[in-house]
Amino acid sequence: MEILNIKKMPPSRILLLFFLVAIFIGSFLLMLPGATTAGNEISYLTSLFTITSAIAVTGLTVVDVSKVFTPMGKSIILIFIQLGGLGIMSFSSLVFLLIGKRITYHERKILKEDLNAESTGEVTDLIKRIIMMVFTIEFIGAIFLTLGFLRRMPLKRAVIYGVFHSVSAFCNAGFSLFSDSLEGYSQNVIINMSVAFLIILGGIGFAVINSSIMYITTSKKRFNLTSKMALFISIILTLVGMGLFLLLEYRNPKTIGEMNLFYKIIASFFQSVTTRTAGFNSVPMGDLTPGTIFLFCILMFIGASPGSTGGGIKTTTFGVIAFYVVGIVRGREDIEVSNRRLSWEILNRALAILVISVAYVSTIILLMLVFDDLGFAETIFEVVSAFGTVGLSMGVTPEMNQFSKVLITITMLIGRLGPLTFALALGEQKQRHARRYPKENILIG
Amino acid sequence: MEILNIKKMPPSRILLLFFLVAIFIGSFLLMLPGATTAGNEISYLTSLFTITSAIAVTGLTVVDVSKVFTPMGKSIILIFIQLGGLGIMSFSSLVFLLIGKRITYHERKILKEDLNAESTGEVTDLIKRIIMMVFTIEFIGAIFLTLGFLRRMPLKRAVIYGVFHSVSAFCNAGFSLFSDSLEGYSQNVIINMSVAFLIILGGIGFAVINSSIMYITTSKKRFNLTSKMALFISIILTLVGMGLFLLLEYRNPKTIGEMNLFYKIIASFFQSVTTRTAGFNSVPMGDLTPGTIFLFCILMFIGASPGSTGGGIKTTTFGVIAFYVVGIVRGREDIEVSNRRLSWEILNRALAILVISVAYVSTIILLMLVFDDLGFAETIFEVVSAFGTVGLSMGVTPEMNQFSKVLITITMLIGRLGPLTFALALGEQKQRHARRYPKENILIG
Ligand SMILES: [K+]
Ligand SMILES: [K+]
Repeated sequence: MEILNIKKMPPSRILLLFFLVAIFIGSFLLMLPGATTAGNEISYLTSLFTITSAIAVTGLTVVDVSKVFTPMGKSIILIFIQLGGLGIMSFSSLVFLLIGKRITYHERKILKEDLNAESTGEVTDLIKRIIMMVFTIEFIGAIFLTLGFLRRMPLKRAVIYGVFHSVSAFCNAGFSLFSDSLEGYSQNVIINMSVAFLIILGGIGFAVINSSIMYITTSKKRFNLTSKMALFISIILTLVGMGLFLLLEYRNPKTIGEMNLFYKIIASFFQSVTTRTAGFNSVPMGDLTPGTIFLFCILMFIGASPGSTGGGIKTTTFGVIAFYVVGIVRGREDIEVSNRRLSWEILNRALAILVISVAYVSTIILLMLVFDDLGFAETIFEVVSAFGTVGLSMGVTPEMNQFSKVLITITMLIGRLGPLTFALALGEQKQRHARRYPKENILIG
Repeated sequence: MEILNIKKMPPSRILLLFFLVAIFIGSFLLMLPGATTAGNEISYLTSLFTITSAIAVTGLTVVDVSKVFTPMGKSIILIFIQLGGLGIMSFSSLVFLLIGKRITYHERKILKEDLNAESTGEVTDLIKRIIMMVFTIEFIGAIFLTLGFLRRMPLKRAVIYGVFHSVSAFCNAGFSLFSDSLEGYSQNVIINMSVAFLIILGGIGFAVINSSIMYITTSKKRFNLTSKMALFISIILTLVGMGLFLLLEYRNPKTIGEMNLFYKIIASFFQSVTTRTAGFNSVPMGDLTPGTIFLFCILMFIGASPGSTGGGIKTTTFGVIAFYVVGIVRGREDIEVSNRRLSWEILNRALAILVISVAYVSTIILLMLVFDDLGFAETIFEVVSAFGTVGLSMGVTPEMNQFSKVLITITMLIGRLGPLTFALALGEQKQRHARRYPKENILIG
């Protein structure tokens, strides 16, 4: 059983195995009689789809979560969201810490890769800090959201809704207890802003939050390059997304056309933030203009920052490639960012992530277009949303046939593991041929 | 006038300048009173669009070429197709040869880049061989096509149609003298096969044809790596495209659904060959299934082989990246193709071409979706078709607003110059900073 020998496994395979085990357990938990409401029994495929969506913090659903699941079912989903959001690795390290077992070098190596920490020594410390940070932020978020919900519901319900949406937002999961996501709250400033800030904090990555805290509390006044790049690209993408959304939907009566300018701007900001990976929506997706659909596909594909709860190819991957292209145009030999130069190895990994992601997404889109009948734009949107673990949909998720549901389930999982795992595979598994072949040139372009 | 000093210009800029001058002259020629039929006067933008489409061998048209232009107008278009197909550089070298002027090293360098010849010494010889080859193939093609057309029209007209379609097919231009391209001949085997073989010969690249002739006529029994890769990828793409088209459209009554199996296969073969860059169609594009639309976008984007009359990012660029990805999956350190390894520099150029092309195409699609109203799939299809100099359209070309027409005109030109020019720029213009910045790592994926 060579392939089941954990000690010898490449970390990327261990990560995959943990996800598979968690999905397997979760899919049966969600099938328990007490998890669904009367008359709403679900098929195993639906359960599998829902729990994968939860642990991959995607948020796509084939059934209406608010109606189909009991409080118990919703709690299971919430737990798996939290599990996925924290990263199974950091969660399992918590278990290790709790039972007092020292983390071995091998375990630490796995953790390190899930969290993108820079040196092995910091891992234990980092995990503690992450757990603290996550619960602190989610707690504060829950208070604000509870206050927001109190206007329309009694205290107990407002607290439950506050906690659920705080965790779901910070983990960039996009699950909501409302059938229409947050469309009913598109003009509620406190809900919009709380959710947006939870998403931003969850999606910016622990490295940036950590650097920020260090910046404020200690004398270490230097952001590392990853943090700078993540912040820079996140801000640019948020502003560009917000501006284009406002422009494209300004006169669309089905989305923000009939709001006043203030709420138009709030809704545009909210939708720009949430589209990159969180997946809540305050305006209906099926009614967007074609330009917005295309814009959203690009934003969903890029996604959040590394070491965060979000998906996509990551802001830093996009940033490295963008700086490279700018460098080409300016005739530079090095890739220069903020008075530093990047190695070609980093560029090659970034390009490999991009190429493999594009190839994978294109293949799944083609398969779904061939074997299902959901429409051209709808299919592209759905697949990119699943791959970026975003969870937005033009409304076709429940209409998919079984083949498409299986493809989307796999895509959510690969989207969660994917680019990172590929990056690792690139960094680790290279093996030189015993005999190298002679070199030959080839004409391209 | 530093920027107009030809001797100091980078070759890529000279290439651009020649195209611009040719387009400028052609756009006025096409405005001459004798070029258009009575009552069908065209605007300058239409003239500019049409002549750019001709010289970039794209074939997109905002008016019905068969009805709007007189024999003189059609001749102008044909001449510009031939000019574009041969490459303005090889054409200008012909002029040099005819007037007995020796080609200077500087001129040869330009030619070399347009033709992708491997060493400067071969250029003069190569140009002669290209001209010979092109006219020989077009002559033979014209004979077959004339025979095909004779069944439905008198001799004189059949000859004119034969010559026009032979040149247009070999140059992968996609211009047709029929309003519905070759839809009326979807069940005519001789026309289909002649056009398909002209397209294949025109799109496989002179290097491959040259190697093949050497293989047959001399003792030099070795294909170089470029030829092998171009042939291998072309065959794979043709077969995959043919198979998927057959599968996707098998039951579509608006395309091949009502043909018998033999003609279904002929039409699938023809459409697979023509989609990668030629742009003729024997079935209506607007009626394709969404899966076929997506498949065609991928095929159009990849395009033909280098040193050919076709466009796209090129089969070899796609091939280098594909072999790289396969190598990653198999854990190899080198990129290995046919017992040879490729340099990382080649891979970087291929990836740069891909990334810049994707970024450019996405930007144009987004702009057209924002400022025009042609539909999601229609816009993506149109832009990819223009960039790949394919010329297929879902029927929206004449409905575009002025802004879109300008964007598509620019995109046809960039598509013709683009990947090649980028490849050159990458190889040539790199300049090292006086002071290199210190290196820093960044987390991606
Ligand atoms: K999500
Ligand atoms: K063409």
